Amino acid sequence: MRFPRPHQTVPGIKQEELRRHNLSLLLRYVHLAGPTQRATLTAQTGLNRSTIGALAADLASTAGLVREESPEVRSGAGRPSFVVVPETERYQVLAFDLKVDRIVGARVGLGGTLLARETVALQPDDRRLETVVKLTAATARLLVDALGPQARCVGVGVAAPAVVRGSDGFVRFAPNLGWEQEPLGEMLSGALADLLPGSTLEGSGVLVGNDADLGALAEQARGVARGHDDIVYLSGNVGVGAGIICGGRPMRGHGGYAGEVGHMVVNPAGQRCRCGARGCWETEVGTDAILRAAGHEPGEGVSVQDVVVAASGGDPRARWALDEASRWLAIGVGNLVNLFNPELVIFGGELRDLLALLEHDIVNRMGVSGLTMAREHVELVASALGGDSALFGAAELAFSRLLDDPLGVATSLAATGS
Amino acid sequence: MRFPRPHQTVPGIKQEELRRHNLSLLLRYVHLAGPTQRATLTAQTGLNRSTIGALAADLASTAGLVREESPEVRSGAGRPSFVVVPETERYQVLAFDLKVDRIVGARVGLGGTLLARETVALQPDDRRLETVVKLTAATARLLVDALGPQARCVGVGVAAPAVVRGSDGFVRFAPNLGWEQEPLGEMLSGALADLLPGSTLEGSGVLVGNDADLGALAEQARGVARGHDDIVYLSGNVGVGAGIICGGRPMRGHGGYAGEVGHMVVNPAGQRCRCGARGCWETEVGTDAILRAAGHEPGEGVSVQDVVVAASGGDPRARWALDEASRWLAIGVGNLVNLFNPELVIFGGELRDLLALLEHDIVNRMGVSGLTMAREHVELVASALGGDSALFGAAELAFSRLLDDPLGVATSLAATGS
Repeated sequence: MRFPRPHQTVPGIKQEELRRHNLSLLLRYVHLAGPTQRATLTAQTGLNRSTIGALAADLASTAGLVREESPEVRSGAGRPSFVVVPETERYQVLAFDLKVDRIVGARVGLGGTLLARETVALQPDDRRLETVVKLTAATARLLVDALGPQARCVGVGVAAPAVVRGSDGFVRFAPNLGWEQEPLGEMLSGALADLLPGSTLEGSGVLVGNDADLGALAEQARGVARGHDDIVYLSGNVGVGAGIICGGRPMRGHGGYAGEVGHMVVNPAGQRCRCGARGCWETEVGTDAILRAAGHEPGEGVSVQDVVVAASGGDPRARWALDEASRWLAIGVGNLVNLFNPELVIFGGELRDLLALLEHDIVNRMGVSGLTMAREHVELVASALGGDSALFGAAELAFSRLLDDPLGVATSLAATGS
Repeated sequence: MRFPRPHQTVPGIKQEELRRHNLSLLLRYVHLAGPTQRATLTAQTGLNRSTIGALAADLASTAGLVREESPEVRSGAGRPSFVVVPETERYQVLAFDLKVDRIVGARVGLGGTLLARETVALQPDDRRLETVVKLTAATARLLVDALGPQARCVGVGVAAPAVVRGSDGFVRFAPNLGWEQEPLGEMLSGALADLLPGSTLEGSGVLVGNDADLGALAEQARGVARGHDDIVYLSGNVGVGAGIICGGRPMRGHGGYAGEVGHMVVNPAGQRCRCGARGCWETEVGTDAILRAAGHEPGEGVSVQDVVVAASGGDPRARWALDEASRWLAIGVGNLVNLFNPELVIFGGELRDLLALLEHDIVNRMGVSGLTMAREHVELVASALGGDSALFGAAELAFSRLLDDPLGVATSLAATGS
């Protein structure tokens, strides 16, 4: 049940939007599922055979977004069904994951294929916006230089460990980069303007998203959450963030700031957080908290993985640190399960390293406290894309405009001669 | 950006669904906004004038769901625009709010007009499912007996203080009624079968929802949250629940159990909750906690409102109780703001009585802790529908099938002779 808002515009569907909707649906399908028989597309979309044929032909002939191939094997006794294949080499995007210590860039083709990857280190003493933008642009140049003559770059997406305004990529707050109120999206769009075909088109700028939000999208699109509509993806490093998908849609909140799970207060008698509050979840389960509990100072070069190895080997201090982490993970994850009733809670970032050892313990602790309904079916799982969740999410973000309006975007690009 | 799920069915839009979608949109619009000029409908939906005219004529002539009236005043210099008016008397629903001490029933017309109301007391020593179903059915009979000859009852919706499975109204857990695993929806559908026209139709059974979820819907449809897409509605009594709307859609979670804010652990050193955990939010801000802090035993007849009055009059124990409540409200509401980034947090139930006195204090405490982005624009407000939020939400639930497929449902009912 969705309520329209009487004083706001509620769109009716017009005839011409129907075609765009269905073209978008079809292209998105093969982008996510890979080469797909027409018969499968017919069954999955509920559209009839001739409609699917016409839509696929449009995507193929008008813009070369897909091609149709004869199936290699005949399935069943019926006519062979053509296979609709996304044109991976022809339509590509650039994706970037801004991490605290490095920038990872990639060129990704339609269909989600990783075609090239570049990494550049970020020095701890210079994480200024200007530096990050310059290094990102240089990486973009390396990636674009190797584009084939028929290939088009149709978008740029960036994942940042930041509270980001989606509309223009303005960073409100990125504590681990030391940024506040920085125009990341605008700066990147400027720095990449000469590099990217079609960048003079309206709305063609660089798209920026929060890394945890994009990690969640990527895990749903291509990772462990395929086919799941209600998920919480935890991105745990020094800070702990979450990307949350409810009913199949990313939960953004009013200003795009939803999912700040790291600043959920779970222990009012706990440590002061860098946000000013006391007992935030990330002061209990963030990387620094785990390292300190295990007797290490952050920056010493010891990782959470090292603590896990030490604990597995019987080191009592490491075991105690992980027991504490498990306790607070159970409380925090339990809260998220009560609030969001997800099918999956995905442990990403360094939390991924903890799950194998602590899963049983966390589930046990969750089981003895709180309501059980939401907990009956939830699964705790490790992210499938590992360190690349946010990078692949940035690629999905970059593809979003093309996927929303395939022929509109493709023909605009062609008109600008790119 | 929405990702389809390649291995599941993703519907394309067919030609015939377009008309149903637009009929649904139009009827829902006048149901929520009341009588509306065709010109406004054109502007608001983006559909053209002739489409709106045809849709309105369909709703009027095929099923009498709306009528068209000449406008009383001409607006501007153009042609007068017909006004589309929902047929309030002709299409009605029954709505029930099952409270711990009483059952409130209402007859509500299309457009949301309350046409009749009945209340029956529930004895503390007999809240068994059978009793509640019998009393509800008797109340329904009173309400239906007064239906006019042209009127049709098109649905029944029930709000329950319970964790409910939406598909069939099965109650998993309703601690304040003492229920566990009770087939409320099935029992009510059986008890009301002879009473309700069209009840033999498939999917015509009684619809049951969680009271906080329905309170949120009602506040969005007709209350303080009109026009807001991201809200948290708190229903605070002995238990504390929430109805959460994200991006315009109710957040349900995988099994429909989302929003259990009362069992968010905020104080691991706190009281044991009846759910088994320690330091749940409702052990700090539920009615019983506030009464006990103020020196009263629950059941003595003292209400939260009485404590508020005493505190306003300077009673030190009452002031202390409210200061404690304010502290925990700030922590819990702050957590919800960080997680959901809502525009509004609506205080419903007995929390409503606290807001006027404590708002300033809660906002101050929230301001000095935690992230500020999500808190910049959030407003704490009292529910506008007061004690009737859940009742009106149950009416919206009851109308949902008709609104989703106006002519389909109306003509099915006509075909069964009702």
